[in-house]
Amino acid sequence: MWKDDLIRIVGPRGYLDRQEDLRLYEYDGGVDKSRPDIVVLPRTTAEVSAIARLASTHGVPVVGRGAGTGLSGGSIPERGGIMIGFARMNRILELDYANERAVVEPGVVNIELNQAIDPAGYFYAPDPSSQRACTIGGNVAENAGGPHTLAYGVTTNHILGLEVVLPDGRIINTGAYWPDTPGYDLTGLLTGSEGTMALVTKATVRIMRKPEAVKTLLAIYNTADECGATVSEITARAITPAALEMLDGSMLQMVEEAVHAGYPLDAAGVLLIELEGLKEAVEEQAEEVRKACLACGAREVREAKTESERQLLWKGRKNAFGAIGRVSPFFYVHDGVVPRTQIAPTLRRIDSISAHCGLTIGNIFHAGDGNLHPIILFDARKPGDIGKAQKAGFDILEYCIEVGGSITGEHGIGMEKIHLMNKQYPEETLAMMRRIKELFDPARLFNPGKLLPAGRGCAEIRQAPLTHGNML
Amino acid sequence: MWKDDLIRIVGPRGYLDRQEDLRLYEYDGGVDKSRPDIVVLPRTTAEVSAIARLASTHGVPVVGRGAGTGLSGGSIPERGGIMIGFARMNRILELDYANERAVVEPGVVNIELNQAIDPAGYFYAPDPSSQRACTIGGNVAENAGGPHTLAYGVTTNHILGLEVVLPDGRIINTGAYWPDTPGYDLTGLLTGSEGTMALVTKATVRIMRKPEAVKTLLAIYNTADECGATVSEITARAITPAALEMLDGSMLQMVEEAVHAGYPLDAAGVLLIELEGLKEAVEEQAEEVRKACLACGAREVREAKTESERQLLWKGRKNAFGAIGRVSPFFYVHDGVVPRTQIAPTLRRIDSISAHCGLTIGNIFHAGDGNLHPIILFDARKPGDIGKAQKAGFDILEYCIEVGGSITGEHGIGMEKIHLMNKQYPEETLAMMRRIKELFDPARLFNPGKLLPAGRGCAEIRQAPLTHGNML
Repeated sequence: MWKDDLIRIVGPRGYLDRQEDLRLYEYDGGVDKSRPDIVVLPRTTAEVSAIARLASTHGVPVVGRGAGTGLSGGSIPERGGIMIGFARMNRILELDYANERAVVEPGVVNIELNQAIDPAGYFYAPDPSSQRACTIGGNVAENAGGPHTLAYGVTTNHILGLEVVLPDGRIINTGAYWPDTPGYDLTGLLTGSEGTMALVTKATVRIMRKPEAVKTLLAIYNTADECGATVSEITARAITPAALEMLDGSMLQMVEEAVHAGYPLDAAGVLLIELEGLKEAVEEQAEEVRKACLACGAREVREAKTESERQLLWKGRKNAFGAIGRVSPFFYVHDGVVPRTQIAPTLRRIDSISAHCGLTIGNIFHAGDGNLHPIILFDARKPGDIGKAQKAGFDILEYCIEVGGSITGEHGIGMEKIHLMNKQYPEETLAMMRRIKELFDPARLFNPGKLLPAGRGCAEIRQAPLTHGNML
Repeated sequence: MWKDDLIRIVGPRGYLDRQEDLRLYEYDGGVDKSRPDIVVLPRTTAEVSAIARLASTHGVPVVGRGAGTGLSGGSIPERGGIMIGFARMNRILELDYANERAVVEPGVVNIELNQAIDPAGYFYAPDPSSQRACTIGGNVAENAGGPHTLAYGVTTNHILGLEVVLPDGRIINTGAYWPDTPGYDLTGLLTGSEGTMALVTKATVRIMRKPEAVKTLLAIYNTADECGATVSEITARAITPAALEMLDGSMLQMVEEAVHAGYPLDAAGVLLIELEGLKEAVEEQAEEVRKACLACGAREVREAKTESERQLLWKGRKNAFGAIGRVSPFFYVHDGVVPRTQIAPTLRRIDSISAHCGLTIGNIFHAGDGNLHPIILFDARKPGDIGKAQKAGFDILEYCIEVGGSITGEHGIGMEKIHLMNKQYPEETLAMMRRIKELFDPARLFNPGKLLPAGRGCAEIRQAPLTHGNML
């Protein structure tokens, strides 16, 4: 019996198959849900390899899972099978400050890496909102971003090399010391591939020296258009803030009621702008940014005078999802990208979609990048609401594609947006991705039903099982 | 006759097959040489596609070529066949300043893109030394770098999307507006693939706002070790210069004699350090950098007071290869990467390799990145010298691998370093690259004999035809 073989590989404490245990692994941070048949918690690359070989022999699907904080269903075992949880592969293996790199296992929590290197004055740049829980392995799988993506790029810009296990159990090392990887960039190909081709068992990541100074501003606006204009104006002044976040009026109210960050309740939008660097440089940039905000119509620009004031400003942004949970037990977070110049029209379109479907939609943006997170409030107990929420989300993403943007900035495709890939890309491009997938995973056992829609003529049709909301 | 078909595709003015014309296409900026059977100069993607289809039908190799400035033989038609020159596909198709992107054809010269966007206050960051001649298509093929790679990254960090032609003539579009490409990152996979899987016919590139201020320093040292220490010290102070270049003592002498940039003739090394940003920020950084240099033993730190002084400092660096040409008609430029902490030991190793083979080796480094360019002087007319130069180069690159670095920072693998890929990567990794290559190019017609060594058991053995030197 192959289940016994699994126990032999990971030990009895690394093997779960009771329904009450499996229940904890059936969801992620998104809306989809599906239970694995077995969860295994390997401790080594060799164990992961042995599990993959065994699954391959028996034709069982394999899905990797970090902390399950993903927002597009990347770690949902849609077709059951074996879930590999990386919770026990959570060691930081090497810290090389002088060469600015670290080697970590996939289960290392993002913030724990940061806490480990903070005393030495270093940080790991990608900072998803879930960074207190999410793991580096999951970040690599979904090519995660965060508020500081604007200045530092997404996860793929911070991964120098990977050790991965392929579906047939082979262990491959990719990458080298330098961003110009000799030969084909397998590291880049696998980063963001959502566990559909390989499972990461080790990652060499870039770490960076912490900036000398940080300054955080809050600019307050009477119209959302002025927020959008400010984003372009700051860029035009050759300033790249470390973060440039926007919250619209309805988000502001929800967040302020929950967090009391001092956000204005009557504004149409705010920009949260963070500047990093040498002390005097930051002072100068802050002055320029203030001018840009006022030139674009900001009615007020506040500046955090102390670290605790700064933390308070960020608290509103970072706890936005919790704040929404107070207002609505069910909500649906989306993730699209539009060219910076399309921010204002996109906000207007979201307003009209909201009016049309009768659901409140709040907006949080990584505005500097044009990466928007519309948050659709609904009530799953009300007949028809789920369908309306889903449709509104997809309408917004289709609009993103229309204006030259894309359907994911940092959450990945997962199950949630797989049917939109046909609108994002021409069939020829998808066909090439499918052939690459087949090369790594000919039996289609690694994370089936994710990222890539089936080709024309295939019977596989996605059924979106939007069965529950986020209950925070 | 399929040659007539080629003429029908590109027109008589786009077709070359006389030996005196073909001779101009048999070399690049490196040391290898091989003549194509035919050169075609298409004007459109459709023409490139038709050429690929025709070549595929007749089993003829196809090699792309931008300006032929490559340094690893990437554009040398090692096995003859059809060379596709992109000189007539040189239009800038779109400039979108507000969203910071440009769409260009592959034959656009790097500096011409920069000149086109400079008046609007923008620049395209990757700046290879050959930027006055090299093309964006070639830059994508080789994943080119440049002195400003330190702050801005290599070419792959600046390519948002590609239109490419596959060996069977299919046209594929990759990428999207945003660095987190939805689905698999085909753009990243093809960038740096040296025309072995696809030919770029259009590229969407990131352009950036020019910094308000630039400051350039020259730090002068009595020992090379102090140069290396300074590089680490600057990073430890959380400063990322836009460029951080090093020239060693023998390079300094050659360069100064040719360029009269005011470089000291008796120093063991200099660092050329450029800082960019807002005016006051740059002032502050310059002060910090000066302190770091002096703390590490610099005997003097000069600062360019005017733009012409700045240009003079760079003139030495940018014309280094010309300067060497005055001293030695034959030289061999290499390209390796070492961890920053290994710079000093690597310089010592290069010294001992130089002593051992009896050839002068000058060193130019992109020191901030640990990307070294040892320049080996030899005399091709002297029996044995070529072999010695070649061996010295490979000894240096093997040392780079040994200390955890890599065999290319920005020049690519091409023909030159193909045999070192076995030392860079385990066989399993190469096998995976080979399978990806086969997926795109099953008949192995696109740039055969480049980048990937043949697998075990294959008869293909690289013969390095080091037949001539750089005659500048």
